[in-house]
Amino acid sequence: MHRVKVRIVEDALDANTTIAEANRADFDRAGVAVVNLMSAPGAGKTTLLEAVLGPGIEGVRTGVLEGDVAGSLDADRLADLHIPVVQLNTDGGFGGECHLDANMVRSALPALDLEALDLLIVENVGNLVCPAEFRIGEDARIMVASVAEGQDKPLKYPLMFRACELVVVNKLDLLEHVRFDLDKFRYYLDQVHPDVQVIATSAYTGEGVDELRAWLAGVPARTGAAV
Amino acid sequence: MHRVKVRIVEDALDANTTIAEANRADFDRAGVAVVNLMSAPGAGKTTLLEAVLGPGIEGVRTGVLEGDVAGSLDADRLADLHIPVVQLNTDGGFGGECHLDANMVRSALPALDLEALDLLIVENVGNLVCPAEFRIGEDARIMVASVAEGQDKPLKYPLMFRACELVVVNKLDLLEHVRFDLDKFRYYLDQVHPDVQVIATSAYTGEGVDELRAWLAGVPARTGAAV
Repeated sequence: MHRVKVRIVEDALDANTTIAEANRADFDRAGVAVVNLMSAPGAGKTTLLEAVLGPGIEGVRTGVLEGDVAGSLDADRLADLHIPVVQLNTDGGFGGECHLDANMVRSALPALDLEALDLLIVENVGNLVCPAEFRIGEDARIMVASVAEGQDKPLKYPLMFRACELVVVNKLDLLEHVRFDLDKFRYYLDQVHPDVQVIATSAYTGEGVDELRAWLAGVPARTGAAV
Repeated sequence: MHRVKVRIVEDALDANTTIAEANRADFDRAGVAVVNLMSAPGAGKTTLLEAVLGPGIEGVRTGVLEGDVAGSLDADRLADLHIPVVQLNTDGGFGGECHLDANMVRSALPALDLEALDLLIVENVGNLVCPAEFRIGEDARIMVASVAEGQDKPLKYPLMFRACELVVVNKLDLLEHVRFDLDKFRYYLDQVHPDVQVIATSAYTGEGVDELRAWLAGVPARTGAAV
């Protein structure tokens, strides 16, 4: 039984890789760079996107794919930004609820005019375990950790902090009210993902938001997508 | 392929139910009430346990089973409390990392002297999706939500907020610094789990901790476990 289960899981991961490659080919054809935005629930991904995309990213036509277990709260919030936003709910079946996979993203692609985009940001389901195991055809992965979650998270969820090209430390405005030492966090992070880039932000005060916007603006160029 | 995967998952859930019942029988035999403590990563479960169990629960011999993807940080913290604490790591295999299941809990039981306990608190892996689907043989489930995560979480993760007998709203001390309206949260919660009991706490200021301790003290009596 156990062996059968493992094989089925391996088949599912193989299938995911194949579909992720198909997504990647579509993104390349359309010249779209794709970022997979991951975090625990409530780390502030949507509020950060509002802060970054409110003024827009100059010269980069951006769209968002919103992944949620249920509801369209986040997509509704981003709709005010007047950019293409597509909601994707994962509550259809067991095992698919806790993360986006390549096939779910693929199912949403017909709703997006890829030719009209330079950058697609995919906001994943809030979860510090499962999303790390499923590539979706993205160019880069961002892991958002809020200071309210505690400085120990890289040691407790190592795969997620390893499976990203950028770590955003969000809710800096709460730093003085919580027990979170940025140096200690960086020290723990270095143990699981040495030298990964870190940007500290507060979506509320705006601190670090320009830096994050600049990082996102650079993704299409870094990945060779047309801008 | 899809049908095979669904069947395997159903088999896995069936197996989980069977093992959860075996756990339940062992807990009953030893007269132990069991609480499954769930939340998103960083909601403050361990700090709450420190606050509740530091002074102890009068007349209730309490032990803790610590579930984490990796490391023993939480168990190390609780070791100072001089109560039985067993660490359980879930990073052994794919698909098992994101939650505790009945079999993982069962594997830890030999390390616990159940006869010496009235109440066993199982701290689950931080995750707002997967733990809700796997019973472990517990009497009651507590869902901890931090005010820093935002008031919209019941609508975004409905199964988790439904699969519990108590919702703890933690980090009350941050309430004035975040955009979180307790009435709004309660309103959203009522949409997915009407009339579920709510206790608001701050592990730092101690607010609500006595109420939570009293609730936990009542679990053995409510479930008929010997005290």
